[in-house]
Amino acid sequence: MIHHPAPGALPIGKLVVVGVGLIGGSCALALKRACAVTTIVGIGRGHANLDEALRLGAIDRGVTIDENWAEQARDADIVLFATPVAQYGALLKALRGALGHATIVTDAGSTKQHVIGAARAALGDAFARFVPGHPIAGASLSGVGAATTSLFDERTVILTPLPETDARCQARIAAMWQACGAHVLTLDPAEHDRIFAAVSHLPHLLAFAYVAELASRPQAAALFDRAGSGFRDFTRIAGGSPEMWRDIALANRPALQEELAAYRATLTRLSDALETGDGAALERVFAQARAARRKWEATHAHADTGDE
Amino acid sequence: MIHHPAPGALPIGKLVVVGVGLIGGSCALALKRACAVTTIVGIGRGHANLDEALRLGAIDRGVTIDENWAEQARDADIVLFATPVAQYGALLKALRGALGHATIVTDAGSTKQHVIGAARAALGDAFARFVPGHPIAGASLSGVGAATTSLFDERTVILTPLPETDARCQARIAAMWQACGAHVLTLDPAEHDRIFAAVSHLPHLLAFAYVAELASRPQAAALFDRAGSGFRDFTRIAGGSPEMWRDIALANRPALQEELAAYRATLTRLSDALETGDGAALERVFAQARAARRKWEATHAHADTGDE
Repeated sequence: MIHHPAPGALPIGKLVVVGVGLIGGSCALALKRACAVTTIVGIGRGHANLDEALRLGAIDRGVTIDENWAEQARDADIVLFATPVAQYGALLKALRGALGHATIVTDAGSTKQHVIGAARAALGDAFARFVPGHPIAGASLSGVGAATTSLFDERTVILTPLPETDARCQARIAAMWQACGAHVLTLDPAEHDRIFAAVSHLPHLLAFAYVAELASRPQAAALFDRAGSGFRDFTRIAGGSPEMWRDIALANRPALQEELAAYRATLTRLSDALETGDGAALERVFAQARAARRKWEATHAHADTGDE
Repeated sequence: MIHHPAPGALPIGKLVVVGVGLIGGSCALALKRACAVTTIVGIGRGHANLDEALRLGAIDRGVTIDENWAEQARDADIVLFATPVAQYGALLKALRGALGHATIVTDAGSTKQHVIGAARAALGDAFARFVPGHPIAGASLSGVGAATTSLFDERTVILTPLPETDARCQARIAAMWQACGAHVLTLDPAEHDRIFAAVSHLPHLLAFAYVAELASRPQAAALFDRAGSGFRDFTRIAGGSPEMWRDIALANRPALQEELAAYRATLTRLSDALETGDGAALERVFAQARAARRKWEATHAHADTGDE
């Protein structure tokens, strides 16, 4: 389902962004560009990052998490969580008592069922005003210093509402992301988590495992010296944040374990084919991969939809 | 060891290129650019490709393998094999009786011990004039239509001579590749095969396995629709030639099996860490990978050394 802007959903009066990094900062900048919000308050772990966000014009005010930050939610229209997903549980709990009775809560996490569970446990009746979201945009850099007004232009934001999710809250969050330049669509949370385990979380795990295994050898330097452009592309995603990917791997554990098991079974088949010298079996797998990869490239080459 | 041009090694009178594809064709074009060769004869499976090579100016004459092609070697200075490596055995055997007594034989295969075994078995006394080589250059395209004069500029060509390899023959092949614009260095054949199993052959196998596994599912289209830039880079090498990579995998089987076993052991560790929710173990592996990947990028980012 594709969303179209809902009347009356914008502008936003007060937006609280919890975690002003690449995603939270870029959302704030894009909403400012669109004149879609009156006030943005950033919540962060320390002053340095919040000061940079202020300097960049992403936020109007910064509040650290030890400054009774949840009080900022009382008169907020929207609270957006954009921290690593493992932090959501404690932050949502702190928010519960302070939530204004019309405040919408949403998030930008890469996994959805785990976040929904944390929100359901923490928010009580306000859970109907929680709109789970996942902007599909990333960059090799992180932090508010890497944030841009255009990060979400023509990108996709996926919302994974529950049956109890308030439709007007959902429409307002959709309008917020559309004001950032993104296309919004909805998916079932479990389907979302299966899909991203397959096309994003697993390849990150595989690339991390590959580079870590090489790096752990005594002769690693001699290997890296001969690595070329194939290696470069294959391992680019192993440059991602260890903390963020640890959190994603744990939050989406059941789906990721299924994907990893399927992949390991394929490697077992290839290992057996190597062992017996079964060139036809190897070629079948390689040819199936090439055909699918070429078809994908022909239809998706210009759809740079980020990787998180 | 880095080679410097040997006096008298150039020009080449007659060069026979067996397999006029991306590599063979680009070598021919680069040698013509450098005026380093008088006559180039291309050997191929059919007329269509040879006619294209003629039209592009890569070769002066084309001979198909059913036209008593080996006779071309009798007065050749150098015979360069640039076909998929599985074809070397039969081609080298056909060459044996026709080889001129000063003709040098060399190759452009991605694996070396297997090729050396085939040459040793086929060439008899002439084996001392076989100089095993591996130009580290590739492209996503294949065939002579993708060949360019500049493919080897600033790239590396590795020679893996044996104790019995004639030093003057080796110097002449080094000079040939230098005339193509490449840097030439030497490696022990077994070390070569171990290194390229680790940094090239294994990642190709892993990327092929990943895409093939996804493509084999009923819901593959829904997965590929959500794949982004991380997926694109991680899977680019799964667009390579199934035939060529089947041959490489089989030719370098022992080293590749060792690499695959080490990688599967790392995946087992990660799977165990996921199973027990051991975030610290996951983060350690991810952090080790990121540190190594960032260090590699800082020192090798501009060294586009190809991927085959």
